[in-house]
Amino acid sequence: MSQESYSEGDLRNTGMSLKHDREWDYELDRIVDAVEERDADKVGLQFPEGLKRRGPRVADDLREILPEDVTVCISGQPCYGACDLDTYLMRRTDVFVHFGHSPMKESDKIIYVPLFSNVEVLPSVDRAIDEELEGEDVGLVTTAQHMNRFEEMREHLEDAGYTVHTRKGDDRLTHEGQVLGCNYASADIDADQILYVGGGKFHPLGLAMEHPDKKVVIADPVNNVLTVADTEKFMKQRYASVHKAMDAEKFGVIFCTKIGQGRWDQAEEIVDNNDNAYLITMDEVTPDRLRNFDMDAFVNTGCPRITTDDGPQFHKPMLTPQEYRIAIGEEPLDALEFDTFHGTW
Amino acid sequence: MSQESYSEGDLRNTGMSLKHDREWDYELDRIVDAVEERDADKVGLQFPEGLKRRGPRVADDLREILPEDVTVCISGQPCYGACDLDTYLMRRTDVFVHFGHSPMKESDKIIYVPLFSNVEVLPSVDRAIDEELEGEDVGLVTTAQHMNRFEEMREHLEDAGYTVHTRKGDDRLTHEGQVLGCNYASADIDADQILYVGGGKFHPLGLAMEHPDKKVVIADPVNNVLTVADTEKFMKQRYASVHKAMDAEKFGVIFCTKIGQGRWDQAEEIVDNNDNAYLITMDEVTPDRLRNFDMDAFVNTGCPRITTDDGPQFHKPMLTPQEYRIAIGEEPLDALEFDTFHGTW
Repeated sequence: MSQESYSEGDLRNTGMSLKHDREWDYELDRIVDAVEERDADKVGLQFPEGLKRRGPRVADDLREILPEDVTVCISGQPCYGACDLDTYLMRRTDVFVHFGHSPMKESDKIIYVPLFSNVEVLPSVDRAIDEELEGEDVGLVTTAQHMNRFEEMREHLEDAGYTVHTRKGDDRLTHEGQVLGCNYASADIDADQILYVGGGKFHPLGLAMEHPDKKVVIADPVNNVLTVADTEKFMKQRYASVHKAMDAEKFGVIFCTKIGQGRWDQAEEIVDNNDNAYLITMDEVTPDRLRNFDMDAFVNTGCPRITTDDGPQFHKPMLTPQEYRIAIGEEPLDALEFDTFHGTW
Repeated sequence: MSQESYSEGDLRNTGMSLKHDREWDYELDRIVDAVEERDADKVGLQFPEGLKRRGPRVADDLREILPEDVTVCISGQPCYGACDLDTYLMRRTDVFVHFGHSPMKESDKIIYVPLFSNVEVLPSVDRAIDEELEGEDVGLVTTAQHMNRFEEMREHLEDAGYTVHTRKGDDRLTHEGQVLGCNYASADIDADQILYVGGGKFHPLGLAMEHPDKKVVIADPVNNVLTVADTEKFMKQRYASVHKAMDAEKFGVIFCTKIGQGRWDQAEEIVDNNDNAYLITMDEVTPDRLRNFDMDAFVNTGCPRITTDDGPQFHKPMLTPQEYRIAIGEEPLDALEFDTFHGTW
């Protein structure tokens, strides 16, 4: 998969497409057990973007150990999270396996295979201790891939003398200390610095936007990089978009139809109160699809990361619901906050 | 909408995105009647790509005459035919209106608004008579937009001395003489020349590929152009793709999940008989989505026009089901035919 043209915050570049090869545990036994239990004819497999290229090999391995009359289907739909289940494939298969994310909501129908990383995390934590962490209190967060090492990291920090603050967050999150691109409730803790351990900058940039008063130290054990999150570029883009949208008359209000990305109430409220707002429903929110609509600005009630990270690629300003309220004068500019997503579906 | 980068056969460029403005009849009264009858709260509107920019104005007009508590939603999903209903929006609205295509299958839930053109067609027919039509027998076909003028065209040709051959085609088609991008059963008539009257080259190019032995005269009353269909470029591309795929080991077999584009039996048959074939399910079949899959070639059981028209944009050869059989040696190269789509859903 070519990564050259991806921007820093590109949703496809979430640390799961790795520079070095590593082994994942696809938990094929669990899948085979489910197929036997349900006497399944069809198995559906869904991988996030960075792991799609592994799909055919996983299908090969599965077909070797499954009864011959079982059909294995791979989802070709884009997938950026557990909010983004291929519901078409799920409904039409007896066993549906979602790889690479922890459950956003449990269901008998879905097998979630988290794909825990086997990368060593402690060297990165040590480097963070040596070079960036200050004081005594530190928050600790990570992504689903490294949750298997969470207690190890916590103990390591405690052994080094830190008071480690962690939190379960809300029901969109499965694990204590887990972050999603759209939800950092696990970082609502009493510490001025947060250590994020994980691949890529996608998650920690959201974390830093949601918590602009905290120092976010990024310890990336996958690429062996230590940095401090810098949101300046993104924040400038947000203010620029809001400013541009202040002159807008016609607003396209996007309701995202992905199972875990719908905020109907927010979309409906805007349209009900603005005769120049138009409700547009879609699954993938892309610049191409919106170019057909002659609007002055858009409000995205779906995935906040499309707004903040891909925003500049759209032909017209793309706002979060709060940014819309600022643009039409209902809230002051300095109230601007990162748009987070709560609840499941 | 920018059209500059579209290729000749681009699915978005089907003659519905017009160079001159014209009035369509959106049949708002029918929609209002349906809302009243069903006591509807939500109305969904779906437009094909070339007409999407009109969506907000139609929504405006509707909102003015509908009760205030009715919510109007516009589909932001790509749409290339009546095969391509936004089933998500359809299921979640009380009245669902599909503009720009004739019914592929009637349903109480769906209001199809064909958007008949008010462009004069006879001057184009006259020009075809003067410059390109030969002999006595001529087939006559057109698209949904010009069906309201079909009898007028037929009579005009008969008055000019022609024996006009027309046919209803199969159940994918609504009208006698109608063609779709994927179905030319209405042109299976006893004449060596066919007059296609309509905008764009998308439909007549498919017609000429499906009927390589017939002369296809294109009378475009929208852009006032008269040409004869030339499929050479497309046919060369087809042969080149098949040749390249002859060396392929791993085949990605696409099952399209769009309501009217699924050919499950064909997809399953290929996968059942080839251990190196992988079933991939998706709605929009785009180069971006397939780039993640490390295959040597793809077989598209969905919309044939994606294969023939957009084929060269994919990173690996994209084949029709028959082209796949040719590539693996099950059929001879000279058996190659245009892939057509029959039945509804």
